[in-house]
Amino acid sequence: ETPLGPGPAARAAVARAAADLGRYPDGHAFTLRRVLSERLGVAPEAITFGNGSNDVLDLVARVFLGPCRNAVYSEHAFAVYPIVTQAVGAEHRVVPAHDGRRGPAYGHDLDAMRERVDEHTGVVFIANPNNPTGTWVRDYELEDFLDSLPRQVVVVLDEAYREYVEEPQYPDGAAWLARYPNLVVTRTFSKIHGLAALRVGYALTHPDLAGLLERVRQPFNVNALGLAAAEAALDDAEHLWRSRELNRQEMARWVEACRARGWDYIPSVGNFITLDTGRPAGPVYEALLREGVIVRPIAGYGLPNHLRITLGLPEENLRAIAALERVLAEAPA
Amino acid sequence: ETPLGPGPAARAAVARAAADLGRYPDGHAFTLRRVLSERLGVAPEAITFGNGSNDVLDLVARVFLGPCRNAVYSEHAFAVYPIVTQAVGAEHRVVPAHDGRRGPAYGHDLDAMRERVDEHTGVVFIANPNNPTGTWVRDYELEDFLDSLPRQVVVVLDEAYREYVEEPQYPDGAAWLARYPNLVVTRTFSKIHGLAALRVGYALTHPDLAGLLERVRQPFNVNALGLAAAEAALDDAEHLWRSRELNRQEMARWVEACRARGWDYIPSVGNFITLDTGRPAGPVYEALLREGVIVRPIAGYGLPNHLRITLGLPEENLRAIAALERVLAEAPA
Repeated sequence: ETPLGPGPAARAAVARAAADLGRYPDGHAFTLRRVLSERLGVAPEAITFGNGSNDVLDLVARVFLGPCRNAVYSEHAFAVYPIVTQAVGAEHRVVPAHDGRRGPAYGHDLDAMRERVDEHTGVVFIANPNNPTGTWVRDYELEDFLDSLPRQVVVVLDEAYREYVEEPQYPDGAAWLARYPNLVVTRTFSKIHGLAALRVGYALTHPDLAGLLERVRQPFNVNALGLAAAEAALDDAEHLWRSRELNRQEMARWVEACRARGWDYIPSVGNFITLDTGRPAGPVYEALLREGVIVRPIAGYGLPNHLRITLGLPEENLRAIAALERVLAEAPA
Repeated sequence: ETPLGPGPAARAAVARAAADLGRYPDGHAFTLRRVLSERLGVAPEAITFGNGSNDVLDLVARVFLGPCRNAVYSEHAFAVYPIVTQAVGAEHRVVPAHDGRRGPAYGHDLDAMRERVDEHTGVVFIANPNNPTGTWVRDYELEDFLDSLPRQVVVVLDEAYREYVEEPQYPDGAAWLARYPNLVVTRTFSKIHGLAALRVGYALTHPDLAGLLERVRQPFNVNALGLAAAEAALDDAEHLWRSRELNRQEMARWVEACRARGWDYIPSVGNFITLDTGRPAGPVYEALLREGVIVRPIAGYGLPNHLRITLGLPEENLRAIAALERVLAEAPA
């Protein structure tokens, strides 16, 4: 997910940990928990580790959803919310996204989401920023939303891409845990830390809520190499900085390319940009594939004309922009 | 779990796969699925991969258990059965183990288990061999049991330690899949393959049943290094042979040591042996720890006087036997 992959510290940690593959992982993630707790300034018992943040989302669904409950989430939101909701037989309440008049187009409409919350709502999922739209929720909006909710409704604030965001009004979920005991902040080592292959994510919550998640967590849900790599990645500030720097530069390249060519895109604060191709995106996707450029069609997200493009290295982005230009010219809308 | 750890092929595969940590794992486990399917002679769609076989047991519980269902399993059986049963709010039906009169002491009493099955039974768990007792179920017993059950009851046959078993009447669950569409055979790469750190397990079932498990499986539940290592391990017949050979030799050493010293043990077909210390095992465990020997007290399994000892390398076993002799002499029962 980051074109640089993991940094040298994480790579070295994997090589070291690979010397002892026969041993079960530390089910309590003792050292990673300690390092993360110090780094984030949260209590060790506020952290629940998962086999990727997907696993944590699943734990939340298992504890707080079920056949008589409903989950509220936005149109175009991350695909794992419907998957985990479905898996526990809960009702889906999909709320139309902003249309661009009262909030950024394709973004979560928190007011409308609030209106769909009732006494059977177990969980509200908020992706901040959202995948695959790259839209985000401002601190004051989120604060109003959280303040307006009954405390028995759990709010998942999914911050998988948070390290890419450089907006002053972007909220830090971890800082709000003390105020909102119903808040679940989820994060991952799969994005900017470049460890998607190893599946490490976590939730930050009130310790009581962590205790509930712990009841359904599998004792060895995070593998030993993932634990070792994540711990090392936390210490590699330089790699994080380089990844963020690269992303900033390449996002500017894509935005400029779109503006210069009149391509319609959704402003994104993540490490991807989603373009409206102005036609069914499937054939565009396939034509790009033939050019050796892999992007993601997202019709499954209710965006049949859009393509989601993860930012690559400079030469990859140049090649992708040129290929897209050819493909769109060959098959006009 | 094997003192040799993984073989050279698996180690090399991990090192190769570690070059690409930034990419998500193959959620369909395409190549591992193909290799395993060929090796076992089962259809590719009969296999469901898990984050360790614990994950597969959890998937089974999520699909076939729930608040109005019950799970039947034996006293002293593997601890994950109660955990996954608890996690979905199902009723536990723990059936007393054999007392040594009608079957091997501490072993599953299949007749008694059959009697506890009713119309609300979702799953029966059978560990073959069982952890932590090392007891096992013969083919004709299992066949009678399966034939006697209504087909809506799912039977999990947990074969985590199967590669160690060298008994003629030990059944091969995979060969029975066609006859019993309600059979779930679970296996793992954590034991003889030495890959516990990487969390790879799988279920073999009728494809229809696999389709149900797939609905609750997380798309990236097995990490990329685990997939690569497991595939390589399947091809490393020599390492498997060496691990089995070592285990056979060291089991003979422990059995002889027990007989010579009059230590009471449970005959085991696994890679561990469970001893009755004739006194509360906690203090014995702690005294062994001080001697640098780590074994497992299993009071949580209803065996407060027993210690479970994983067979190590020859020198480790010699040291453990000598330490145990000293500890038991110092604190007589």
